Amino acid sequence: MKYSPEFSVQWLQFMVMVLLISFTGTVSGWFNIPRLSPTRGTIIENPDLQSFAPVSDDLRTFYYPQTLDHFNYQPQSYATFQQRYVMNFKHWGGANGSAPILAYLGAEALIDNDLAIIGFLNDNAIHFNATLVYIEHRYYGKSIPFGSSEEAFKNASTMGYFTSAQAIEDYAEIIMHIKKKLRAFYSPVIVIGGSYGRMLASWLRLKYPHVALGALASSAPILYFNKITPSGAYVSVITKDFREASETCYQTIRSSWSIIDKIASRSNGLSTLSSKFKTCKTLQDSSELKNELENMYAEAAQYNHPPRYPVNMICGAIDGTNEKKDILGKIFAGVAAYRGNRSCYINQPTNVSEADVAWSWQICSEMVMPIGIGKNTMFQADPFDLNSYTKECMRSYGVPPRPHWVTSHYGGHDIKLILQIFGSNIIFSNGLRDPYSRGGVLENISDSILAVHTVEGSHCLDILREKESDPEWLVKQREMEVKIIKERIAHYHADLKASLIKQ
Amino acid sequence: MKYSPEFSVQWLQFMVMVLLISFTGTVSGWFNIPRLSPTRGTIIENPDLQSFAPVSDDLRTFYYPQTLDHFNYQPQSYATFQQRYVMNFKHWGGANGSAPILAYLGAEALIDNDLAIIGFLNDNAIHFNATLVYIEHRYYGKSIPFGSSEEAFKNASTMGYFTSAQAIEDYAEIIMHIKKKLRAFYSPVIVIGGSYGRMLASWLRLKYPHVALGALASSAPILYFNKITPSGAYVSVITKDFREASETCYQTIRSSWSIIDKIASRSNGLSTLSSKFKTCKTLQDSSELKNELENMYAEAAQYNHPPRYPVNMICGAIDGTNEKKDILGKIFAGVAAYRGNRSCYINQPTNVSEADVAWSWQICSEMVMPIGIGKNTMFQADPFDLNSYTKECMRSYGVPPRPHWVTSHYGGHDIKLILQIFGSNIIFSNGLRDPYSRGGVLENISDSILAVHTVEGSHCLDILREKESDPEWLVKQREMEVKIIKERIAHYHADLKASLIKQ
Repeated sequence: MKYSPEFSVQWLQFMVMVLLISFTGTVSGWFNIPRLSPTRGTIIENPDLQSFAPVSDDLRTFYYPQTLDHFNYQPQSYATFQQRYVMNFKHWGGANGSAPILAYLGAEALIDNDLAIIGFLNDNAIHFNATLVYIEHRYYGKSIPFGSSEEAFKNASTMGYFTSAQAIEDYAEIIMHIKKKLRAFYSPVIVIGGSYGRMLASWLRLKYPHVALGALASSAPILYFNKITPSGAYVSVITKDFREASETCYQTIRSSWSIIDKIASRSNGLSTLSSKFKTCKTLQDSSELKNELENMYAEAAQYNHPPRYPVNMICGAIDGTNEKKDILGKIFAGVAAYRGNRSCYINQPTNVSEADVAWSWQICSEMVMPIGIGKNTMFQADPFDLNSYTKECMRSYGVPPRPHWVTSHYGGHDIKLILQIFGSNIIFSNGLRDPYSRGGVLENISDSILAVHTVEGSHCLDILREKESDPEWLVKQREMEVKIIKERIAHYHADLKASLIKQ
Repeated sequence: MKYSPEFSVQWLQFMVMVLLISFTGTVSGWFNIPRLSPTRGTIIENPDLQSFAPVSDDLRTFYYPQTLDHFNYQPQSYATFQQRYVMNFKHWGGANGSAPILAYLGAEALIDNDLAIIGFLNDNAIHFNATLVYIEHRYYGKSIPFGSSEEAFKNASTMGYFTSAQAIEDYAEIIMHIKKKLRAFYSPVIVIGGSYGRMLASWLRLKYPHVALGALASSAPILYFNKITPSGAYVSVITKDFREASETCYQTIRSSWSIIDKIASRSNGLSTLSSKFKTCKTLQDSSELKNELENMYAEAAQYNHPPRYPVNMICGAIDGTNEKKDILGKIFAGVAAYRGNRSCYINQPTNVSEADVAWSWQICSEMVMPIGIGKNTMFQADPFDLNSYTKECMRSYGVPPRPHWVTSHYGGHDIKLILQIFGSNIIFSNGLRDPYSRGGVLENISDSILAVHTVEGSHCLDILREKESDPEWLVKQREMEVKIIKERIAHYHADLKASLIKQ
């Protein structure tokens, strides 16, 4: 379909509709969590990131003609789209020595972001003599089927191919293609991903052991599906993080919700709240404010990185105001500290990215993480409600989610019992301050399916670029990961040698 | 679509077209092999089978509303069809003791056949206190999507969902459904399949370790894809089987082809051949005769079961005729011995089953085993030609095969190097007289991925019903398989106990 102004309007309407349900948290029982992603927001929004430049100057971009539908044989299944991947050969030890390939599996974002922030591959290429590849996920960035985003996101018929199983098969095919092109048939491949991408990495190792020798899967909440992990776990970690930072801060936040409700129930209450929080537009409903606050606390906990430590920053501001009884004033101080100097704070006009729209589809199809708010947290209770979730997804896309798919297809229940005699070479790394860590694998499963976690760590921290200011525990976590991967590669090279001698 | 006489004619035409390419062997370089199947032909055709009765009287039939398309989220993906499965609870030890479930994965036939011939489950249920389930493969028997075979086999759009990956996911879902229904969450499941079904069994264990604890995968030519096994291996085993049975028989067969060609090239030659071989219709081309002979030799080798031993039977007849110089007379004696007393032998009107039509689709989509005839066999050389294979498939279905799919998705290359550190609990059993055995796993891969084979065995013999007349080596092979499965289940029960205590 050619681009046309009419269509663009439809497209915008569609995006707005999608975002209404997935990002404003108006659905009852749908906790307004930040997207699973290695970093908060885009590079531009995020002051933690050192620069916008890619991790290396030695990157080369390629496109692979990817099959639209790997699993069926209908005429339309054979359609292809250009899938982007980026390589870095600088430290490559060559096919003859079966030097390793480190493959980053793109997640729910365009790959450019990752090229700027994911440091693990570039920082370690030299230690492994590895070639690097970063592969973009289908339906993100420049890897869009059907010729355009407008077509690709038109309806469930075109979005229907946008699934994790198709994406993992994409990755497997591109990795095999690269090995063939480089004639590196015996080069071990280590797949690395962030968050959703790390789920993909662990699943790729489990489903395609002939493609990946091992996986570094950190902050992968593969157990946050189908009731394996209690629904309230995510929010209970946020609560713990804030409480550990400051008991008074936690108490302040906890008591703020009923005050907001009380003011909102008064005539002119919404206008009082709007002025108190310097909202960009007057609030139409107190949920607009509450959702943004919830989201801020969640984001701060999830990305509670050094050296900024946003949880401490928010609590510092909340605790720091002199006016002891002005609870909402304290909360606003937290918002202002977190967001920085702005003309207004809440209800900002949102820049909706294509990636946001795309992720909305993913959580409405298979990535159904039933995150709700239980009792005894710093939030008002709001349990997850699958019925209303399903209804909203149906309303947006016309097809229902499949909340059991992830555990049916990839497993998860009784993971230790299953995997202690099956599979190998996976590192599940986590930072325990990351609310998603509670859906991760936190204990060793076997002698090569290992859990590496840090008490102080946050979401995906270990695969970000190394910095001078990194704390000791983070440096050690990365060293441990590198050591394990090196050992597994050495084992593989020994096995390979033995097998070639035998031939 | 309602049944209509017009449609029925189209349907018949379609079936004939399919069979023309896939069963008459007119495609150059496409060796006319028998279908991958636990037994030769249907029960009615096969005198080896003791009776037509099911293995047990304690069978109960169920239907599961199966999802048409597990891997995509288009509106039509959510359609369901009734998938048949049959259970036997007679010897079940119950959910409380986590007694095992033996699950037979139907292959390219309706499940009724298997209920009559697959004895392994019923013969061993009592030793395992197991409940039994036999699941029919989608698009076979009564497990047909789209309401009718006419609709299901209409074109590539409706047949497009007819793939191994969809079928394995079907099995996984039904097994999980049964465990839930029986509240047998911790019952270990052993999946068992025959031939193509055994490939599915090993792949199910590898892809869904959370569904199946182990697999008995015998006569599974999982390595007969994408050049892992030499193209001519199948035919070289047929040759070896006949040569071992009788050197003179082998020589007679070997020399017969050029004699057929020579006679066929004469005027009236086809009529001479027709009368010599008592054909049911006059031959239009010598390939009709040659294809039927090739197919007979292959079938005899593949199903060279005791006590009949068809290879010996054919060779006995070939060697037994007195007229030493009448090569074709000898060959005809072999045909007559193998086929039994009939009014005519070659070019019989064929009874084409729906399963034959269905399997034709499977070999034209993903089950591309590149079997050709090399030099130094008892046949005329006829190498496999992927181009003409692809063309013929395109002509029949309008979509090309994906010859790399099986190895991309399931693996196979360097299987020992890959699986010695990955996966567990698979028995690959084979009989080395089975031509497919050369595409099987013939050596132990690890301490729980094991190869169990017999020198004298043929295709899928070990999972057929036990008989009084079974030779010692067959009895021992089955005992070994049962012993291994018992050990693995005992290990699992110990692990389970430890894990429950820990909780």
